[in-house]
Amino acid sequence: MTLLNKDFLLTNEPAKRLFHEHAAKMPIIDFHCHLDPKEIYENKNYPNLTRIWINDGLFGDHYKWRLMRANGVPEELITGDGDDYEKMVAWAKTIEKAIGNPLFEWTHLELKRFFSIDDTFNEKNVKKIWDKANKMLTTEDFKPRNLIKNSNVKVVCTTDDPASDLHYHELLQKEEQKNGFKVLPAMRPDKAFAITAPTYAEYLQELGNTAQVSITDFKSLVKALEKRFEFFQAHGGKLSDHGLNTFHFVKVTPEELDRIVTKAINKQELRIFEVDAYVTGLVEALMRLNNKFGWTMQFHINALRNANKPMFTKIGADTGFDSMGTQADIADNMMRLLSDMQNEDNIPKTILYSLNPNDWMQLATGMGDFYEGSAQKLQLGCAWWFNDTREGMERQLRTMAQQSLLANFVGMLTDSRSFLSYPRHEYFRRVLCNLIGEWVERGQLPEDYDYLGQIVEDISYNNAKNYFGF
Amino acid sequence: MTLLNKDFLLTNEPAKRLFHEHAAKMPIIDFHCHLDPKEIYENKNYPNLTRIWINDGLFGDHYKWRLMRANGVPEELITGDGDDYEKMVAWAKTIEKAIGNPLFEWTHLELKRFFSIDDTFNEKNVKKIWDKANKMLTTEDFKPRNLIKNSNVKVVCTTDDPASDLHYHELLQKEEQKNGFKVLPAMRPDKAFAITAPTYAEYLQELGNTAQVSITDFKSLVKALEKRFEFFQAHGGKLSDHGLNTFHFVKVTPEELDRIVTKAINKQELRIFEVDAYVTGLVEALMRLNNKFGWTMQFHINALRNANKPMFTKIGADTGFDSMGTQADIADNMMRLLSDMQNEDNIPKTILYSLNPNDWMQLATGMGDFYEGSAQKLQLGCAWWFNDTREGMERQLRTMAQQSLLANFVGMLTDSRSFLSYPRHEYFRRVLCNLIGEWVERGQLPEDYDYLGQIVEDISYNNAKNYFGF
Amino acid sequence: MTLLNKDFLLTNEPAKRLFHEHAAKMPIIDFHCHLDPKEIYENKNYPNLTRIWINDGLFGDHYKWRLMRANGVPEELITGDGDDYEKMVAWAKTIEKAIGNPLFEWTHLELKRFFSIDDTFNEKNVKKIWDKANKMLTTEDFKPRNLIKNSNVKVVCTTDDPASDLHYHELLQKEEQKNGFKVLPAMRPDKAFAITAPTYAEYLQELGNTAQVSITDFKSLVKALEKRFEFFQAHGGKLSDHGLNTFHFVKVTPEELDRIVTKAINKQELRIFEVDAYVTGLVEALMRLNNKFGWTMQFHINALRNANKPMFTKIGADTGFDSMGTQADIADNMMRLLSDMQNEDNIPKTILYSLNPNDWMQLATGMGDFYEGSAQKLQLGCAWWFNDTREGMERQLRTMAQQSLLANFVGMLTDSRSFLSYPRHEYFRRVLCNLIGEWVERGQLPEDYDYLGQIVEDISYNNAKNYFGF
Repeated sequence: MTLLNKDFLLTNEPAKRLFHEHAAKMPIIDFHCHLDPKEIYENKNYPNLTRIWINDGLFGDHYKWRLMRANGVPEELITGDGDDYEKMVAWAKTIEKAIGNPLFEWTHLELKRFFSIDDTFNEKNVKKIWDKANKMLTTEDFKPRNLIKNSNVKVVCTTDDPASDLHYHELLQKEEQKNGFKVLPAMRPDKAFAITAPTYAEYLQELGNTAQVSITDFKSLVKALEKRFEFFQAHGGKLSDHGLNTFHFVKVTPEELDRIVTKAINKQELRIFEVDAYVTGLVEALMRLNNKFGWTMQFHINALRNANKPMFTKIGADTGFDSMGTQADIADNMMRLLSDMQNEDNIPKTILYSLNPNDWMQLATGMGDFYEGSAQKLQLGCAWWFNDTREGMERQLRTMAQQSLLANFVGMLTDSRSFLSYPRHEYFRRVLCNLIGEWVERGQLPEDYDYLGQIVEDISYNNAKNYFGF
Repeated sequence: MTLLNKDFLLTNEPAKRLFHEHAAKMPIIDFHCHLDPKEIYENKNYPNLTRIWINDGLFGDHYKWRLMRANGVPEELITGDGDDYEKMVAWAKTIEKAIGNPLFEWTHLELKRFFSIDDTFNEKNVKKIWDKANKMLTTEDFKPRNLIKNSNVKVVCTTDDPASDLHYHELLQKEEQKNGFKVLPAMRPDKAFAITAPTYAEYLQELGNTAQVSITDFKSLVKALEKRFEFFQAHGGKLSDHGLNTFHFVKVTPEELDRIVTKAINKQELRIFEVDAYVTGLVEALMRLNNKFGWTMQFHINALRNANKPMFTKIGADTGFDSMGTQADIADNMMRLLSDMQNEDNIPKTILYSLNPNDWMQLATGMGDFYEGSAQKLQLGCAWWFNDTREGMERQLRTMAQQSLLANFVGMLTDSRSFLSYPRHEYFRRVLCNLIGEWVERGQLPEDYDYLGQIVEDISYNNAKNYFGF
Repeated sequence: MTLLNKDFLLTNEPAKRLFHEHAAKMPIIDFHCHLDPKEIYENKNYPNLTRIWINDGLFGDHYKWRLMRANGVPEELITGDGDDYEKMVAWAKTIEKAIGNPLFEWTHLELKRFFSIDDTFNEKNVKKIWDKANKMLTTEDFKPRNLIKNSNVKVVCTTDDPASDLHYHELLQKEEQKNGFKVLPAMRPDKAFAITAPTYAEYLQELGNTAQVSITDFKSLVKALEKRFEFFQAHGGKLSDHGLNTFHFVKVTPEELDRIVTKAINKQELRIFEVDAYVTGLVEALMRLNNKFGWTMQFHINALRNANKPMFTKIGADTGFDSMGTQADIADNMMRLLSDMQNEDNIPKTILYSLNPNDWMQLATGMGDFYEGSAQKLQLGCAWWFNDTREGMERQLRTMAQQSLLANFVGMLTDSRSFLSYPRHEYFRRVLCNLIGEWVERGQLPEDYDYLGQIVEDISYNNAKNYFGF
């Protein structure tokens, strides 16, 4: 019953066997994360635990920032220019209050797995932990590439703008053999969606230049994106990802789409329905491209971004001021989209993540209306962001199991900006094994370890490999 | 810890005692299903396991079809004219992937209870199971009536159009004594609701002919329906059922309702608010009739039907392309309806089922605003369709227990098209006993088996008998 | 395994130790309830168990009324003038059906803790219990003040109209030393919100008189309210509370608000958007006042009131005809409100309660966008009303733990009209300890009883004391 003991989260015998004999040994495919390929390539040591764990200027772990704010820590010791050690103390005092929060477990798991530190992370122990960790951080093992490699990671998919030149991906591909893992690009065309952003026209210019297509309307925008699909494909790209914070399905003609883009390029103000029509049109165009290239399309939906305007003005986006979305009819709109694309048989391999778990059963059953041709073509994505907890994972696994075929699930990803996040795959696998073990214990599954062990291995690794085609 | 062992799903001692000593022996009242009275009357053997289990042309088990599609099985081996044995192999391979899905358990439970087959259903065992089951399917015990009788079923309520002549119900009633069970009609006036269907006017004609009422407006439509209530009543009818996929409460005058029906009969296009007004008016008229006749009115709400248009065009409705509804304000609209009918004291005995479990607490507490006069006049229906899982059942039971009086619950039904579905009542009773047993174990209930055993027997059988008045 | 045994709800060893060694001994701060200060001051015995437990005219426990209606009990034996003993028998027969309902446990817990009655409350035992309890009800221990004091309550916050003269609070404060507990006012300005009520203008008159401010527009209304804040503050007031059954964020200018109030005073009909604008404006004005005075602002949102019009006409509000709200976008509107007030840095200490648990994760994560300056400035309130069950409490605790810092939680309150409700704090603490114990058992927390015991004591008592500033 000690913290993070060998069998933590494993409350039954079948679970223990499934985890230790099957899950633990499997490599990792981290098919969606926010690591910077440049950072992987440059492969530098971090000066101290604060810099790799909490913040390095405005880059860092907004999960931790948010929790520190919940404990009343002043911004100076979060994203500000406070002393690094004081920040670590503030973080330790925060974690002391965080019982039942996933960060309590992630923090200790990262200390244990990477630094072999078993002490509870709290105000009393923070100095000792700080000293030990900082010493280790100077060694070879704590350079990004070794952190990845020693975590048994085989594939990392980053998150890249379609206009990216994938320079660091190219450099890393040359060293793939040596590294022992692949770093592949995944396309996230957020800027192409941001038609009301003041920089939209400039972005289209940039994208057009990269693609060698002059973008003047919707048609040429799609043409440019197709070129970028080709380019990403040539660099091993097999996934794209789309953040639809809200989504309102509004279908208009191709001519109307051209007109809207031209209007935006000319900096004319758009009406709300024009923005919705553009987003709908672009999503559908991208579904066609994903389908054509055999890619998998990920949707991250129902998020509320930057609700705190003063802090947004001060420190920008992705700094811990986002929350669960509140669009009650988003599943309804996603279903309209899927219905419409089914009419032209153009639904690609699709993974849907909603930040609001109230949407999950709607999405999981809704996707079931469009299965066709290949095993589990559409999947409910693993528990995302605020749902990335033991309960959230269990709920996602149960929802997928009840509404489709869990054994076909592509499994876990980190969605992380940090090189220390890989133990979340271990965490996920424990939750998975525990759930399956419970089913065995209740007589809902046969106690057949060859059969169930294979499924555990598949969800841990094989399914992702086969589904994405790595 | 073997699959579906004697105590499966029963994780505590009180649960085991309650199930084996009280629940197991109780007969079944299956008060809502989609069995065909003709098929019961004709009482023929099935040629093989595929035909009784998967499909017989476009008639069959769309739960299984859907799951096979999730595994990438081609339609030919689902609803198509593929080889029956190959279909069974495809189904076996699908079930291998279905850990945690209710169909995994239902499949094995049906093999075990009807065919005494204990083998795991998978690719390896499928031939052996196929041969054994097919042999048994030729025997007397596997004719529909014996399947019903040997499952200890006392009452089956079918789902019937108000225009039905109930011919097979009449024939079956003559053999009731011999059969050992009743087959009663339950009215489902879907076609009367479908005012935008091209065949609406023709349907009113047919309904009018049957009722010997000339239907020219809303008033005469209701008159005709009342005649059919009398006719169903004379054949033992005591329930009706209404599928409100979506529902928008729009109240208009009786004159306006007459005008809308006349317009529809004349094939004039209706505006959306007219359709909503008609549906609202018809639901209210039917509530009055149900109340007058002392029937129980069932509402199945919040479903999304036929989202996949190409497949709908190809193989029609009820083929596995329906999903959970996405109307976020459906509970709000149901509350307006109940409020309005309370004003004229015309809420009948009512059972509400929503496909979206997010609605359940709203509905369960909302119904509590209208209890009056008889015990548990309004009830939250058992976990429906995609919710028909261990977790779904537990959630429904807990919701009903917390918001009203679980001991008054009318319990489980199969909602099935298959003669092999009765073990779902066993499944439900295990879940029920396990939940009550947990309450005992946590000290939330007295360990009094006379008291709790009576409640288990009531929910299993007696409550339905008394509530519906069989 | 007996009903409400020493370890009921405590299913693991750490939970038992945490509850018995840490939680049980802590005093109670009941920071939100509906007790009548006059009744506390007058301190009279109750004539029998029905009068303290079920109803005393139209004052009483609408939780019980509602459940009796669910069992078909005639209104005469609920709120009517039926015989007191017959009412108790009807209640006993209702409780027999209430397995899994919190009232089953509350009823037995109150009998056990206050009356030392261990018998199961049912038809068979009701006479014996009635006689024993009635005898005890005549003693000193069963006067309101002793019921409070012997429950180890240190602070009671009542619910008071801003126009209240707080007469009984003043009288009680003089006897505070003797009583051993404080009774403090908490402001609930429902009548100020009810701009469409026929008595609105008269209420403003009354409020203006009390505040010695002539209320002629929005500005002067806020001025009057500020005076009442000062008055409540002088009487120990530190909280306010607002029932937003529905909420639509509509921001208008101060001039427009003045115009709307003037219109209402002149009994002119308001348009819906004007009502929404007024409510929004008043909420914002109150947020500024709460922030200025350092108070905590509570919001009780998403409730549906008085859905049963005939019963409302007959017996009025708060009689058991309210249910869970159905406003699907209420969290969205709350987020707009918080965003807007963050712009002027005027979010006070805030506790949000929604009757619809579907809203909780949205609210919990949404509040996380506005943490600033002090520990857990915004909190998700404990499981309210229909959620006040073991599962509801666990869900609230888990949601708060996962989305912020549970160790900072201000904890439980009774929300009750009865002097016998304090065991609900015990119930809550058992649920809390059990949850923490489970985390220990699964290896998610260290088995450190000094550390976890302190957190349990904090959530039970210390946090509320410090957060509200008693």
